[in-house]
Amino acid sequence: MGVFSKDIKTMDDLFVHTLRDIYYAEKQITKALPKMIEKSSNPQLKQGFEKHLQETEGHISNLDEVFRMMDLEAKGVDCPAIDGIIKEANEVAGEVDDKNVLDAALIAAAQAVEHYEITRYGTLVTWAQELGHKDCADILKRNLAEEKATDEKLTKLAESRINLAAAE
Amino acid sequence: MGVFSKDIKTMDDLFVHTLRDIYYAEKQITKALPKMIEKSSNPQLKQGFEKHLQETEGHISNLDEVFRMMDLEAKGVDCPAIDGIIKEANEVAGEVDDKNVLDAALIAAAQAVEHYEITRYGTLVTWAQELGHKDCADILKRNLAEEKATDEKLTKLAESRINLAAAE
Repeated sequence: MGVFSKDIKTMDDLFVHTLRDIYYAEKQITKALPKMIEKSSNPQLKQGFEKHLQETEGHISNLDEVFRMMDLEAKGVDCPAIDGIIKEANEVAGEVDDKNVLDAALIAAAQAVEHYEITRYGTLVTWAQELGHKDCADILKRNLAEEKATDEKLTKLAESRINLAAAE
Repeated sequence: MGVFSKDIKTMDDLFVHTLRDIYYAEKQITKALPKMIEKSSNPQLKQGFEKHLQETEGHISNLDEVFRMMDLEAKGVDCPAIDGIIKEANEVAGEVDDKNVLDAALIAAAQAVEHYEITRYGTLVTWAQELGHKDCADILKRNLAEEKATDEKLTKLAESRINLAAAE
């Protein structure tokens, strides 16, 4: 994106820009998740992160398909939002020693990531539908549904014994 | 936070750190919203942002109350997540000229902000309950409910004629 130009002229441009934003974000998440798996202690949480890493790779393949459908090169654009969310996750995790407190921090960090993805996929589905890209909307809806399901699982984990154990 | 120390030792420390994170975030949002009001064209959207600015000031007062209840100084900590989300909002908005496309971009940016707040307040409510800070949880729930309501209003605006007008 040029600093002095107005490169987003139409809703289609905005849609493609946002697709590239989430494409970059998903790739950054595949780099962040292995560290979160390593840092987590609770077996359910570790397993959940492992499953989500596989899902994230699937989301990237789905986005590749959307780019193909639109006859566009699959590429990302810088996404300061996900960079900030991941930076904050690393900073907070680096301050925690106790393994139960660290698990709680990792769940909160993962939920911040999920919510970023939920908002972006929600927006992309709406725009795809309104722009007449029904096939793209269907694929993006699948990614959205998985992100929401992951967030719900994380909420249940947060509400379960993990935090209670940490508060003992 | 010291770079080489482990400053978050307990769930209470993590709770207070996250309170300070959202306190900083809310303050940054009060600075970002006037620019979003200025850039928006759709009267409903402009009015929605104006109302949300007032609500955000209320959320800061509620957080002040939570800090008082916990006998803590009301202060923020750096929050790279919200900084990144707002930076990205400004970058994208700076690329758009057409007023309908800009409105669509502003709605998407505002929803990314709302989702960050929803995830943080959701986490804080869960932790406050588990740590026995019931009064704090009740106040945090009020902020959470307003953020969710704002996000829903933005979704409706996104699905309404704004985007259709931009796609014409």
